[in-house]
Amino acid sequence: MNKSIFYHAGCTVCVSAEHDIVKLVGSENVTIINIGEQKSKISEAENSGVVSVPALVRPNGNVLHINFGAAISDLK
Amino acid sequence: MNKSIFYHAGCTVCVSAEHDIVKLVGSENVTIINIGEQKSKISEAENSGVVSVPALVRPNGNVLHINFGAAISDLK
Repeated sequence: MNKSIFYHAGCTVCVSAEHDIVKLVGSENVTIINIGEQKSKISEAENSGVVSVPALVRPNGNVLHINFGAAISDLK
Repeated sequence: MNKSIFYHAGCTVCVSAEHDIVKLVGSENVTIINIGEQKSKISEAENSGVVSVPALVRPNGNVLHINFGAAISDLK
């Protein structure tokens, strides 16, 4: 798949970063997942190497942790 | 200006993030500044709200701190 995945938790920091990322890479190039609401996606995010949100996982597997909203461990 | 500015300090974390950002937003949309080499740009980065590198400053002024390479204070 060629889309990046943006994980967030709905907090202010996350929402602001989401707007920036969508603007930068284009909404068609990113799937947005709120792991604050979709708890089942937390393990998926962790398996991708996400340790805090907001974070962007690239198609090549690289993880970009952007600013700092919340630690994954705080969302469980 | 419509370009984002990517500040980095040449470290491994920065270089990796630089590749990701250039890939995501396109090299024509980002100016890359190494403040490890161009010390005169440190105050410019600080005035933009950059507190650590790598960081991306958007045209609208928002700062995205990406992963963590080095604190600005360590680069002076």
